[in-house]
Amino acid sequence: MRRTKIKELIAQGEIGSKVNVKGWVRTFRNNQFIAINDGSTINNIQAVVDFQNTDENLLKRITTGAAISVDGEIHESMGKGQRIEIKAESIEILGDADPEEYPLQPKKHSLEFLREKAHLRPRTNTISAVMRVRHHLAYGIHKFFNDKGFAYMHTPVITASDAEGAGETFRVTTMDLDNPARTEEGKLDFSKDFFAKETNLTVSGQLEAEVGAMSLGEVYTFGPTFRAENSNTTRHLAEFWMIEPEMAFYNLKDNMDLVEEMLKYLINYAMEHCADDLAFLDQRYAQEQKSKPQAERSELGLLDRLKFVVENEFERLTYSEAIDVLLNSKMHKKKKFKYTVEWGIDLQSEHERYLVEKEYKKPVILTDYPKDIKAFYMKQNEDGKTVGAMDVLFPGIGEIVGGSERETDYDKLVQRMVEMDVPQEDLWWYLELRKFGTAPHSGFGLGFERLILFVTGMGNIRDVIPFPRFPQSAEF
Amino acid sequence: MRRTKIKELIAQGEIGSKVNVKGWVRTFRNNQFIAINDGSTINNIQAVVDFQNTDENLLKRITTGAAISVDGEIHESMGKGQRIEIKAESIEILGDADPEEYPLQPKKHSLEFLREKAHLRPRTNTISAVMRVRHHLAYGIHKFFNDKGFAYMHTPVITASDAEGAGETFRVTTMDLDNPARTEEGKLDFSKDFFAKETNLTVSGQLEAEVGAMSLGEVYTFGPTFRAENSNTTRHLAEFWMIEPEMAFYNLKDNMDLVEEMLKYLINYAMEHCADDLAFLDQRYAQEQKSKPQAERSELGLLDRLKFVVENEFERLTYSEAIDVLLNSKMHKKKKFKYTVEWGIDLQSEHERYLVEKEYKKPVILTDYPKDIKAFYMKQNEDGKTVGAMDVLFPGIGEIVGGSERETDYDKLVQRMVEMDVPQEDLWWYLELRKFGTAPHSGFGLGFERLILFVTGMGNIRDVIPFPRFPQSAEF
Repeated sequence: MRRTKIKELIAQGEIGSKVNVKGWVRTFRNNQFIAINDGSTINNIQAVVDFQNTDENLLKRITTGAAISVDGEIHESMGKGQRIEIKAESIEILGDADPEEYPLQPKKHSLEFLREKAHLRPRTNTISAVMRVRHHLAYGIHKFFNDKGFAYMHTPVITASDAEGAGETFRVTTMDLDNPARTEEGKLDFSKDFFAKETNLTVSGQLEAEVGAMSLGEVYTFGPTFRAENSNTTRHLAEFWMIEPEMAFYNLKDNMDLVEEMLKYLINYAMEHCADDLAFLDQRYAQEQKSKPQAERSELGLLDRLKFVVENEFERLTYSEAIDVLLNSKMHKKKKFKYTVEWGIDLQSEHERYLVEKEYKKPVILTDYPKDIKAFYMKQNEDGKTVGAMDVLFPGIGEIVGGSERETDYDKLVQRMVEMDVPQEDLWWYLELRKFGTAPHSGFGLGFERLILFVTGMGNIRDVIPFPRFPQSAEF
Repeated sequence: MRRTKIKELIAQGEIGSKVNVKGWVRTFRNNQFIAINDGSTINNIQAVVDFQNTDENLLKRITTGAAISVDGEIHESMGKGQRIEIKAESIEILGDADPEEYPLQPKKHSLEFLREKAHLRPRTNTISAVMRVRHHLAYGIHKFFNDKGFAYMHTPVITASDAEGAGETFRVTTMDLDNPARTEEGKLDFSKDFFAKETNLTVSGQLEAEVGAMSLGEVYTFGPTFRAENSNTTRHLAEFWMIEPEMAFYNLKDNMDLVEEMLKYLINYAMEHCADDLAFLDQRYAQEQKSKPQAERSELGLLDRLKFVVENEFERLTYSEAIDVLLNSKMHKKKKFKYTVEWGIDLQSEHERYLVEKEYKKPVILTDYPKDIKAFYMKQNEDGKTVGAMDVLFPGIGEIVGGSERETDYDKLVQRMVEMDVPQEDLWWYLELRKFGTAPHSGFGLGFERLILFVTGMGNIRDVIPFPRFPQSAEF
C-alpha cells in the first residue's frame, strides 16, 4: 500500500479508508496507543494496537525512536485534539531504538543537551518545528524575489579578497601546513597554492552582487557567509546564511520600501504556511517567558509580535534624529545607559533596543549614519559627514538588516578606499563598474538565522541551523 | 515617472502612453536609434531620438555600455521584430562608457575573452540569457521540492571530515601558515585552530541530509560544494552547486521515479519561463554546430533535445545489462572503444555516450553498479557484488545525477567502512542513524551547473556560473 504522509492524513484522511503510515514512535502508552511522527507535520497520528492479538515480541520493540510501518483503517478518534486515529491491522518494525541507549526519551531535554545530539534533535517537536519554519522562510524568500523578477545569483564562496573589511576570515588553502611552499627568500609562496594566490571564505556576496545589478538589473544572493570571529554569543555563528538583494536604479527610499515589504511578506508567509508549528512555538515561547523575571518578560506573545510587525509601518528616522531621541530620553537623563550617547558613536545594543522596544515599540529603520562607522562603498551624502546607509532594527533581535545606497562616483569611491585602506588592486573590477555605465543602485543584507530567531522566538542562534559552526565546534 | 522594466514594457506597453525606461545602451545607430537593455529580458527596447533637436554633447555620450534614463511616449514600431518603440522626449546619461576603453563593443566577443571580463559579461546576450536560465532553474528546483513537501536543509559548508572520500578537499583554517601552532613534539597542533580540529570545505551534504531524512522525512540541499582537484576541463569547477534530495522510505525504484520526474519538471519549467532566452540560445547552438565537423554535430537542435527528454521515458537498465550491450555493440567488436569493456570497470565517457547517444538516444538510468567502484554508504545488494546505485546519463553531458539507496544495516555499513578505510570515529553520528530507528531511504545528487549546460547548450561550465573557480583562478 502506498504510504500516506501524516500531514496529508490528518488533513484529508477519510474515516473507513485503509492506509499505510511510516514514521518514528514518539510514545507508546498502555501497550495500546502509538503516537507516530514522520516529520511532515508537528502533529502525530495515533495508531491503536489490538495488543491482545499482537505478538508480545513485536509490542516490546515499539519503543520511543523506533521506525515503524503501520497498515490500518482510519477511525474517528475519541482522544482529545485529534480528529482521527488508525486502527492498526499490521505493524512492521523498520528499525529498532533500544530504550536503554536511545538518547531522546519522552521527557523535556534541554536545548544544550540537544545540541550535542544534532543528528537526532530534528526528531523533537521544537527543533523540527524550527526546521520546517526555516524551510518555509527560505522558500518565501525565493518566491518573493522571483515574483518580482529578481534573478537569484550565486556569488563565490571562495574569494581572493576580504573586500568588505567586514571581519576576520577563514583561509582556504591546499598548501601543506607542515611544510608550505616558500620563495627563495623564505616567504610563503602562494603562487603554489591552488588558486595561485591567497584565498579565504567570503564574508559577503554584495560586491559581486553589484555586478549582477549593473547588468541584470535586480538580483539577490542567498548563500553561506563566514566570520572567523571568536564570538561565543547567542547571536553569532562562524557559518551563517545571508540574503543580499542588489538593485539597479534604486535609491535609499526604494531600498527601505523593499526591505519593509520583504520582511512583512516573509512573516505573513510563515504565519500562513507554518500555522501549526508557530502555534506550538508560541506556546513554547509563552512558557519560557513565564520562567523569566517579570522585568525581562516580553510584553507580547510570539504570534502577537509577528502580527504587530506585519500590521504596522516601520518607523523611519535618521541616525542624527535617533541620537537626539536618545539624548532626550529618561534613560539618558537618569544615566541608565551603560555606553555614552553622542553623535558619531556606533549605536550599542542597549540604544537600539531602547529605540525599538521602548520609544517606538515597532521595527525601526535608521538611515544616514556617520561615514566613519560604515563601509567604504556607501554613498556619501552631501553633508560630507554621513552616508546613505540603513539599518533595520527588530525587537529582541537588534540589527536584522544592514544596507545602503552605493557610491557610484568613481573618484569619491577611490578616495574613500584610500582613506579606509581598502586595496584597490583586488577590486579593479568593482571600480570598473563605476567607470562603465554606472547607475544609482542600492542593496541590503539580511541575516537568515536572525530572521528565524525572530519568527520562531528561539533564544540561541545555534538552535535554528541544522549543524551550527562556532569556535571549537565543527561536529557533524 | 516610475521606471518600467523593459520586459514588462514589451509585453504590455500601450501605444500612446508615457514611460520611463532605464538601462544600458547596446547600440546607437544613425544618431537616432538606441537599443536599450535593462537585464530583465534578452530583448532590447528601441528609443528613437530626435537628433536634430538634441544637444550634440548629449548625443556623443550615448555610447555602447552607457547607462541612460529615457522618458518618452510609446509608438508602434516600423522596425522588424519589435511591436513598439519609444519616442524619446528626454534622455539623461546616468553613467558614461568611454568607447575607447569600454571592452564590450557591439561585435562578437569570444567566451574566453568574456571570462576575463566576468564583471561585465552578464551585459552580453549570451551570458545574460544563461544567467536568467540559471535563476529560473534554481527557482524551479525550490518550487518542485516545496510543492512536494520536502524541507530545504542547509548542510554545513565547513566540515571536519572528508566523509565521502569523494576527492581532494580544501583546508579551512585560521592558523598562521608561516608559523602554525605546534605541539611539544613539533607536530601541527590543530587544537589551536578555530574549530580545535582539522576542517575542510564540504564535498557533499549527503551524510548530513540523511539526518534530515531520518527526522523530517523528505529533505533536499541546494548549496555550494568543493573539489580541490587540478582539473582544467570544460566539465569541472573547484566550487559548484549541488542539489541533494534525501528521502525516508524511498527504495531505488522510488528514487529513479523522483529523479526522472524532477529532471522533466525542470526542463519543462525552463521552457515555459525562459522562452525568449532559450530561443536565443537555440539559435546560438545551431550556429555553433555549423562550425563543427559534420561527424561531431548534434543531431538535434537545443530546443528539440529538451523536448525529446521531456517527452520520452528514460531508459532504465542495470550496469550488468549495460556491459552486455556494450560488449555486443559494433563499436566494441570493431575495437573502436579506447578503454576495455568488462564487468567491473568504471564506465568511461565514451561508453556512457555510446549508450545515451547511439544505443538508446535518450537519457539512461544505470543501476546496481559493482560495489568496489561506488561509495561505502550504498545499499549492498543480495548478490554480494553490486550496490543499489543509480547514475543518470544525459546526452552531451554524461553523468548528471548520481544516487543510491543507502545502507541501513549497521553491521554491513561498518564492515564496508572498514574495507574502504572510512574513519568511523568521525562518523559516529552517521552510524547512530542506523542504530536508532533506521529506515529504508534513498537520495541523489544533481550537479547544478551540468544541468544548466544541458539546458542552455553551453559548452564550458565556466560560462554558466557568475564567477568560476578553477586551478590558478579565483579572480573577482
